[in-house]
Amino acid sequence: MDQEKYNLLSQIQSPADLRKLSVEQLPEVCQELRQDIIDEVSVNPGHFASSLGVVEITVALHYVFNTPEDRIVWDVGHQAYGHKILTGRREEFATNRKLGGLHPFPTPVESEYDTFTCGHASNSISAALGMAVAAKKIGDSQRHVVAVIGDGAMSGGLAFEGINNVSSTPNDLLIILNDNDMSIDHAVGGMEKYLLNLDTNATYNRLRFKASRWLHDKGYLNEDRRKGLIRLNNAIKSAISHQQNIFEGMNIRYFGPFDGHDVKEVVRLLSQLKDMKGPKLLHLHTVKGKGYKPAEKAATVWHAPGKFDPETGKRLVDDSCGKLPKFQDVFGDTLLELAEQNPKIVGVTPAMPTGCSMITMMRQMPDRVFDVGIAEGHAVTFSGGMAKDGLQPFCNIYSSFAQRAYDNIIHDLALLNLPVVLCLDRAGIVGEDGATHHGAFDMPALRPIPNLTIASPMDGKELRRLMFTAQKPGMGTFVIRYPRGRCHDTDWKCDLEEVAVGTGRCIRKGQGLAVLTIGPVGYDVEAAIQESGLDVAHYDMRFLKPLDEALLKEVADNYSTLITVEDGSREGGMGSAVLEWMNDHGYTPAVHRLGMPDHFVEHGSVDQLKHICGFDKESIMKLIKELKKE
Amino acid sequence: MDQEKYNLLSQIQSPADLRKLSVEQLPEVCQELRQDIIDEVSVNPGHFASSLGVVEITVALHYVFNTPEDRIVWDVGHQAYGHKILTGRREEFATNRKLGGLHPFPTPVESEYDTFTCGHASNSISAALGMAVAAKKIGDSQRHVVAVIGDGAMSGGLAFEGINNVSSTPNDLLIILNDNDMSIDHAVGGMEKYLLNLDTNATYNRLRFKASRWLHDKGYLNEDRRKGLIRLNNAIKSAISHQQNIFEGMNIRYFGPFDGHDVKEVVRLLSQLKDMKGPKLLHLHTVKGKGYKPAEKAATVWHAPGKFDPETGKRLVDDSCGKLPKFQDVFGDTLLELAEQNPKIVGVTPAMPTGCSMITMMRQMPDRVFDVGIAEGHAVTFSGGMAKDGLQPFCNIYSSFAQRAYDNIIHDLALLNLPVVLCLDRAGIVGEDGATHHGAFDMPALRPIPNLTIASPMDGKELRRLMFTAQKPGMGTFVIRYPRGRCHDTDWKCDLEEVAVGTGRCIRKGQGLAVLTIGPVGYDVEAAIQESGLDVAHYDMRFLKPLDEALLKEVADNYSTLITVEDGSREGGMGSAVLEWMNDHGYTPAVHRLGMPDHFVEHGSVDQLKHICGFDKESIMKLIKELKKE
Repeated sequence: MDQEKYNLLSQIQSPADLRKLSVEQLPEVCQELRQDIIDEVSVNPGHFASSLGVVEITVALHYVFNTPEDRIVWDVGHQAYGHKILTGRREEFATNRKLGGLHPFPTPVESEYDTFTCGHASNSISAALGMAVAAKKIGDSQRHVVAVIGDGAMSGGLAFEGINNVSSTPNDLLIILNDNDMSIDHAVGGMEKYLLNLDTNATYNRLRFKASRWLHDKGYLNEDRRKGLIRLNNAIKSAISHQQNIFEGMNIRYFGPFDGHDVKEVVRLLSQLKDMKGPKLLHLHTVKGKGYKPAEKAATVWHAPGKFDPETGKRLVDDSCGKLPKFQDVFGDTLLELAEQNPKIVGVTPAMPTGCSMITMMRQMPDRVFDVGIAEGHAVTFSGGMAKDGLQPFCNIYSSFAQRAYDNIIHDLALLNLPVVLCLDRAGIVGEDGATHHGAFDMPALRPIPNLTIASPMDGKELRRLMFTAQKPGMGTFVIRYPRGRCHDTDWKCDLEEVAVGTGRCIRKGQGLAVLTIGPVGYDVEAAIQESGLDVAHYDMRFLKPLDEALLKEVADNYSTLITVEDGSREGGMGSAVLEWMNDHGYTPAVHRLGMPDHFVEHGSVDQLKHICGFDKESIMKLIKELKKE
Repeated sequence: MDQEKYNLLSQIQSPADLRKLSVEQLPEVCQELRQDIIDEVSVNPGHFASSLGVVEITVALHYVFNTPEDRIVWDVGHQAYGHKILTGRREEFATNRKLGGLHPFPTPVESEYDTFTCGHASNSISAALGMAVAAKKIGDSQRHVVAVIGDGAMSGGLAFEGINNVSSTPNDLLIILNDNDMSIDHAVGGMEKYLLNLDTNATYNRLRFKASRWLHDKGYLNEDRRKGLIRLNNAIKSAISHQQNIFEGMNIRYFGPFDGHDVKEVVRLLSQLKDMKGPKLLHLHTVKGKGYKPAEKAATVWHAPGKFDPETGKRLVDDSCGKLPKFQDVFGDTLLELAEQNPKIVGVTPAMPTGCSMITMMRQMPDRVFDVGIAEGHAVTFSGGMAKDGLQPFCNIYSSFAQRAYDNIIHDLALLNLPVVLCLDRAGIVGEDGATHHGAFDMPALRPIPNLTIASPMDGKELRRLMFTAQKPGMGTFVIRYPRGRCHDTDWKCDLEEVAVGTGRCIRKGQGLAVLTIGPVGYDVEAAIQESGLDVAHYDMRFLKPLDEALLKEVADNYSTLITVEDGSREGGMGSAVLEWMNDHGYTPAVHRLGMPDHFVEHGSVDQLKHICGFDKESIMKLIKELKKE
């Protein structure tokens, strides 16, 4: 059956097998590869539309280049499912994103065909440039290096820093610009418009490329003549047009745009460009979700669709959580509600209006929400500028992506204590997206920054109250971290009440042992205490900064043993802050700090990973029982 | 005397006074302002060449715009001395950069004319765009917003993210590109070449601008006609040239290049552009160090020259430290030495080859050192790419600037534990550059990141040994932090010996009380112990990560009271790591943690600031005496 449906694909154990096929067979390979991705992702959820869009580019790259010796650097690995399937991981693909299974994004830890970490956007050009320079320095001049970057990722400052440095150093880097008119939502900004304008010059570029190809086919393209050709190209360029595009302005030769779904054409293009000296960029147009009609029409909702029926496109909703709302829903609805009351509120998101639900406000108030594209640093500094002159921005960034805005938070917000509410979504363990995406470091990284207020809600109601509190006049820079996924209260739509800054809550008193939590892990602790039947106290810290000193004194005076639980790194986090306070005030309780360990946590379900990290309900209950026994 | 030498300047208490003068008087104001900067900085050291370069721009901006109601956002405040002098701070200028005196860089805390924090490069466009958007939203459409950015700062990804978003939102932002062909050393990369190319199109741009000006002078430039003018400009553009530059490609109207030292011309240009709708960029050429011959010839060495004789340009060397070498000298010389032995070593610096002394290697091995411009994120990821394919990069970044590369360190180095030696220069208190420049947060921010090795040398010999150790095969990502300034050993040029990773040193044993230090503060502690004459132990931790557990056990078993001293934030830093270890292993010594406090530390001399923070020799000695008395 597999062999019938996947006549060619079933024979491809590695790119070497692919390269045995004729060019004429490649469209069929592409068709089979696309079908395989549809079949796999429909039953084992993962990223979808991006991988469909680069099927032809993927096949052509492995066909033309001598991988793994040649380096393909993917920018954002959610497009790399085809790459995985072609590079010996087809059998294992059913384990993709699962605990112990294939990694969600390519990683050299897993395969020699994976060349670099690619969980966060915009790093491919810098990393690939490093490899291209290394190829020259190590003396292995035969190695080719290709970076594949989408137009969405091009809006990140790192991509620009990479491009700006490409021509500073001798190298033969090939950059493939995969232009599909969108990142996860849609590409934003001047660069996007710029790429559209470039298309109008297609005639000239095609003509120039044809001239180059003709010279090559006639055998004119040896090393000496190549230099001549560059001059010739410049001459052709002069003759036809005076336009100099941004890439050529930076001394990167530009070719395009071409159809990225014509695999034979892409193979021809890559073959021509492969041995061309110097840095160059190939601009290909693709359609996100290509070949699967529902995804072509609505690529954003098909970015990572969950399970679906491949025949009908019907999404199979996972209702295992019943009617529990997502923190994201609470954020989106509450933000709109607050914005209706407070005209100074504006929203800022770096390319995640859907993911963080800022789209709710965006739909109602499009001129008060700014999707700045994949540009976390700008999102924060731009928010700072608006706050300086009287607005009240809510800037929402995923915790692990906010690592790119670390300096902006310090230098452009905290130093002046500007009234920006920085919401860190996806804080803590995110599950299947794995090591690059867990929001592990925000608490230790932000805690030493003066002026910041840092809070984390235990549930939906608390998120709502914290958001209401954070936008009150005089609050300064206010960070609210909360995780991906469901909160525990269906009745979250409470009245908007202010929370006293720097206060926690006593959830329950007890004997001898107290558990201190921050964030929704408080619910796991409650469940553990209840199930244990033991008399254990529980306090929700709610604020990492400032600490509730009265609460800590009460705890220190009444309990000899403490457990701290946080969904984040143990090193320097909330437990560490509690330890510091206890020590500084002369208390020496035994403190058991639970949280993420000092190694990168891999992918799996959130529950599996919390268990592995030792702060799921069962682990907490076990520790409580042990400590109460002592 | 002052009134004679500074006939006009002495009458200017604020920009309002400046605006009372005629345009014809402005060249004289510029001459006086320039002289005043020379007189001031020659006796009270500070940044020099940058401020001389923007004298005319500064005068013209305050003359044309209604500051402080209109917003001028400086990118990097070291160019803003003229701005300070014109905005009511001339009398106080002698206190510039001194403890309690004027801040080293403009800050809204000090003056209403200072609009944003500007210690780190590249943030002006994002912040100013926020202000320009706020001006529209708050309904105060009369307010003008101007960002002034140098070509060096333009290489930072944040500047690009800003530019990429300028045209997404209705606003009237004016960006002044101050193009002086350099940042602190010299501008790097494609953008720089791009700007050079733009100059060749000057004829067209001048012509277009003249047409615009003529229309304005004739009264044609009302609101309706302005829209027409844009189309007219486009038509002129079509007629003369097909070139579309990067800024216009991003829908930012481009004007230039013009001479930034012709103050009357700059006033005319600004007057014309002031009320033009939509985002626009004015490209001005200036010379860094303009008007002071020695600085014009060697702007890099005159960036922040220390005291000098204004007549002769003779630098007055501060030899109060005798012959003590700088950590930077040790770094530079040792790197060259290691690179001579290990052909895999390459150097990477984001625009600081002189400041960090990588220039020593650069001069000998220009093709093995990469100055990537102000682009810290790229510096790290590019290093990661080179390391992935076999090279051994030493990437040197100032600690506070490395905050911009936080995600790159996590995602592009630590996840794969790539063999990059990341040297964090200017770690800890830096002195006169103040709050934006202290390297306060690197230890707490990096400590939770898995795989990292983090060390800090107590002196030059230790820096040398750590550098030697860090480039040994199998070391993975290795961070070495050390401060600005002198180390305590003149005989630093020791043999290259390996240090065992994760080991500290017992400097002296004692009774009851032990001091644990990391970095050169160990010398202050030694001096304090010796001067106290008390029997106190001292251990140099040397590694923040991994901790020396054997050393900690020895300390815990033998001393009841500990002091930890670190030149960095107390929250989550080395002292906190020691506390965590003690707690996790069942020890409860009293730990006194000394370090930087939980508020931003201002400017002053390093010694003054250490005293204020409570970890200079005197403070440590006082604490030791108190604790030994108990």
